[in-house]
Amino acid sequence: MLLITEAYFDNSSTTFLCKEAKEAVLAACDYNGNPSSLHRLGTFSSELLENARKQIAKALKCSASEIYFTSGGTESDNAAIIGAVGALKRRGKKIVTTAFEHSAVINTMKHLENEGFEVVYLKPDESGTVPISAFLEAIDQNTILVSCMSVNNETGAVLPIELIKKAIEAKNSPAYFHCDATQSFLKYPLCPENSGIDLLTVSAHKIHGPKGVGALYVKKGVRVLPRTFGGEQENGFRPGTEPLILINGFSAAISAFGDAKENARKCALIKDHIKTKLEAFDDIVINSPKKSSDYILNLSVLGVRSETMLHFLEQKNIYVSSGSACAKGKPSHVLTALGFDKARADSAIRISFSKNNDLVQADRLIDAIIDAKNSLIKSK
Amino acid sequence: MLLITEAYFDNSSTTFLCKEAKEAVLAACDYNGNPSSLHRLGTFSSELLENARKQIAKALKCSASEIYFTSGGTESDNAAIIGAVGALKRRGKKIVTTAFEHSAVINTMKHLENEGFEVVYLKPDESGTVPISAFLEAIDQNTILVSCMSVNNETGAVLPIELIKKAIEAKNSPAYFHCDATQSFLKYPLCPENSGIDLLTVSAHKIHGPKGVGALYVKKGVRVLPRTFGGEQENGFRPGTEPLILINGFSAAISAFGDAKENARKCALIKDHIKTKLEAFDDIVINSPKKSSDYILNLSVLGVRSETMLHFLEQKNIYVSSGSACAKGKPSHVLTALGFDKARADSAIRISFSKNNDLVQADRLIDAIIDAKNSLIKSK
Repeated sequence: MLLITEAYFDNSSTTFLCKEAKEAVLAACDYNGNPSSLHRLGTFSSELLENARKQIAKALKCSASEIYFTSGGTESDNAAIIGAVGALKRRGKKIVTTAFEHSAVINTMKHLENEGFEVVYLKPDESGTVPISAFLEAIDQNTILVSCMSVNNETGAVLPIELIKKAIEAKNSPAYFHCDATQSFLKYPLCPENSGIDLLTVSAHKIHGPKGVGALYVKKGVRVLPRTFGGEQENGFRPGTEPLILINGFSAAISAFGDAKENARKCALIKDHIKTKLEAFDDIVINSPKKSSDYILNLSVLGVRSETMLHFLEQKNIYVSSGSACAKGKPSHVLTALGFDKARADSAIRISFSKNNDLVQADRLIDAIIDAKNSLIKSK
Repeated sequence: MLLITEAYFDNSSTTFLCKEAKEAVLAACDYNGNPSSLHRLGTFSSELLENARKQIAKALKCSASEIYFTSGGTESDNAAIIGAVGALKRRGKKIVTTAFEHSAVINTMKHLENEGFEVVYLKPDESGTVPISAFLEAIDQNTILVSCMSVNNETGAVLPIELIKKAIEAKNSPAYFHCDATQSFLKYPLCPENSGIDLLTVSAHKIHGPKGVGALYVKKGVRVLPRTFGGEQENGFRPGTEPLILINGFSAAISAFGDAKENARKCALIKDHIKTKLEAFDDIVINSPKKSSDYILNLSVLGVRSETMLHFLEQKNIYVSSGSACAKGKPSHVLTALGFDKARADSAIRISFSKNNDLVQADRLIDAIIDAKNSLIKSK
C-alpha cells in the first residue's frame, strides 16, 4: 500500500510488515490445530509456538521458559506492573517510575494509585532524560517496583537502564525492575539478565512484525501474579488460545531484522542529516535530547501546530506523528514533563525511522517541512 | 495441512481457517498504518477495523459501539466478569454461575472468591443441563452477576439463556447477565438485546476464523470497569494496538460462515448417524444430553481411556478430543459436575463437528471406534 513516492517516517507508531513476517503469517494459516490439543495437529501448532518462543529468547539471550506471549506492549506492561505489585504488596506500597513513560505504564500507575499504592513519577532533567541520581534518591526499602522505559517513545531519550538494578540493590530495596523496551528491542543490544532486569516488555509491530502481539520476559524466580484466568496456556500465566499467526510473524520479523549496528547506523545518518539541515532555522527547535535513539527525532516548527504539519506532509505522501500521541488533543504528557512551553509542545512532530528509510526520502521531508514553514507561518 | 484422508472432529477445540479468512489475513498484511495514527495510512487501518466491528455487530444485531475487540474468549470472559463485579461491588457480593463453565469463567470465579466474593456454582441435573429453576432459586438481591454459557463446550448441553434475564428481574436483582457464547456464536441465532444479555463473549477460531482474537459485547449503558490501562483504543476499555490481521480474518470468517440452519442441519445429520450407530453397543454410553448442540457429541467407550482412544484414532488420521480438556490428566470438571463415575469420565471423548465434515468421515470414525473397542478392550 506504500507507493514508491511515499516516505514513511512514523516507525515509532508502527512499522511496515516485512516480507518475511508476511510469509510467516501466511504459513501459520495452515497450522490449524489448537496448540493445546493432544493429537498430532495440536503438536504441530505447539511446535510452531515453541520455536517462536525460542527465537525471542535467543534475541534476549534468555531461556524460552522466561518468555510469555501477550497481545502486545500494553498487555505486557499491565501484566508486569500489576502482577509484580500484587506479588510484593506485603513488602511495601511504593513504586518508582518516570513521568514520561508510555500511557500503558502511566495509566496503569494511576490505577494503582487508586488502589492505594504510592507512585513516584521522576521528572526528566534539562538533559531530557531521568538521571540515575533521581532513581537513587527515590528508591527506598518500601519500594516494590521500579518501572522505567529503555527509550522514550516521543523524544528517543535514553534512560539509565543498566544502572537501575544497582540502585535498587544499593538501597536494600526488595523492588522488582520492569523495563518497557518497546522502542529499543532489537534496535539496541539488550540482555535482561546482564542488565538486572526482572520484567521486560517487547512488541512485534515496532520491528516490522504484526500488530497485536508482544511478549513479557519474566526472569526465572521472579514472582508475578497472573491477572487472566483460564486454561493452562503460557504456563497458566496468560491463558487463552495463542495467536499462532501473529506469533509466527513476530518470530520471522526478529530473524529478518538484520544487524542492529548496521540498522542504527543507517537511521543515525538519516536523522543527523535531517537534524543538521533543519536546526539551522531559527524557528525550528530540536526536542530530542543530544543522547537519544537513532530511530527518533522530535522537533518543533514554532508557529505550525503539530496536526497542521502532519496533514501538510501527508498531502505530499510523507508520514510523521504529532508529538502528542494523545488522541483527544490534550498536550503530550512527555513534552509537558520535559517542561516545554505550550508553543513548543503544540508544534512538536515526531519523525521516526527504520532501515526502509533513505536520504532521498529525508531530503523530501526536509524540503516539505521548510515549505510548510514558509507557507503556513506566512499565511497566518 | 489436512490430507484428503484426514477426518477432523475436534472443531470445538478449534476450527480450520476458512479460505475467506485466510485471504482477509493476507489482505490485512498490507494495512501498515497504526489505526490510531492521524494520517491517511492510519485512517485506512482504522476503516478496516471499524468495518470488521460492524460485521460482528451485524451478526449480533447490535450497535458497533457495543463491540470491543479482545485477544479471544478467555480475555472476553475475564474482562466481562471482573469488570462487571468491579462496577457493581457496592451493591452486593454474590455471583451465580454454573459448575460446568469453561475454565476461563471457572478460574476467574475462583480468583473472585479469593477476593471476597461469594460464588454459587449451579450443578447440572440429570437432564445434563442447569434448569432455570436453579437460577431462580440462587439469584437474590445481593447477586451482582450471573454468568452462564449458552452451550457447554464438552457435552454440548444447552443452557436456558433466554430465561435468565427474566429470573434476574423476577428476583429484583441488580445483577448483570454475562453469557459465554463461544460455542454457539453464529451456529445458533443469538441476539443479546432480545435475550436480555448484558455482556457476551464470542471468539473467532471456533467459526473458522484465526486463533487469538475475539470480542466482548457490552450492552449500551452497562458499566464495566476496564482492567487494562493505556491508550485510547477500544474507547479506552481495551487499550493496545489492535491485531488488524486477526480482526480482518475474524470479520471474513463471519461473512463466510454460511446459513446457520443449513450448517446445523448438516452437523445434526452426522452427529445422529454416529450416535445411532455407536449407542447400539453395550459398552458405549452417550454423555451429551438429549437436548444438545448439533455440533458436539460426547461419549464414553467404557474400558478405553480417553487419551488411548485419541491416539488410536490419530493413527488413522482421525482427530477428536479427550473429554477432559484439562492438560494435566485431572478429571474433567464438566463430567465431574454431571456426576459421572470415574470409569465413564476417564473414557469420554468429544467428537465435534463443522460444515466441513461429511458422512464418509463419520463412517470412518465409527469403524475406527469399534475397531479400538474390539482391539483395546480385548488386549487388556
